[in-house]
Amino acid sequence: MDFTGTHLLIDLFGCTGLDDIDRVEATLRDTVAAAGATLLALRLHSFGVGQGVTGVAMLAESHISIHTWPERDYAAADIFLCGRSHDLDAALATLAGGLGATRYEQQRLSRGYGVEPVLTRA
Amino acid sequence: MDFTGTHLLIDLFGCTGLDDIDRVEATLRDTVAAAGATLLALRLHSFGVGQGVTGVAMLAESHISIHTWPERDYAAADIFLCGRSHDLDAALATLAGGLGATRYEQQRLSRGYGVEPVLTRA
Repeated sequence: MDFTGTHLLIDLFGCTGLDDIDRVEATLRDTVAAAGATLLALRLHSFGVGQGVTGVAMLAESHISIHTWPERDYAAADIFLCGRSHDLDAALATLAGGLGATRYEQQRLSRGYGVEPVLTRA
Repeated sequence: MDFTGTHLLIDLFGCTGLDDIDRVEATLRDTVAAAGATLLALRLHSFGVGQGVTGVAMLAESHISIHTWPERDYAAADIFLCGRSHDLDAALATLAGGLGATRYEQQRLSRGYGVEPVLTRA
């Protein structure tokens, strides 16, 4: 079996509720579910009232992370999934919707053993 | 303050000990220390004897992850650090050394609010 994974880096702008750890957690859980991935562990950290939140979902298929800067309405996320059967577009739409992003940029990278890294930007 | 972060995606080949959760944990801890980053939480998961390991370090500066495929001597890692004062090269050398990689490929991406994503590949 050749391993093939896809790594999405997503920068999200114009977001809301980025200091709300419950909202970030819900978005993370919903994104995992939308991807069709298997959650192993979830960990979140709030940097304080009105401050950013960091959340990481450890998956059987790798990981999804969200890091937020409420003072800039900006969040940086990544979705790294191994295997071909996951719905990256659904995960991306759920992530952006959950954070109320008005705009996002994604960079999509194929990676793994025997895979020449290929980057697409949108 | 403009946020500026650097996201490194690293594919490591010819590695050893990739089914050893203690070794992956030590490598993750050493990589965090080499970067000069602040560890908030560490979580590791073994997929079984002789199988891969997934580890994620949640940092005050974002995260570092390692995912291993011992059957291919291959590991996929990423190092995402916010701020300008961290030693990414030291972190990368520690990561590669800890996993015994004979070769690695890195892709380095500047990202954040007000930053036009720039990718360099090495």
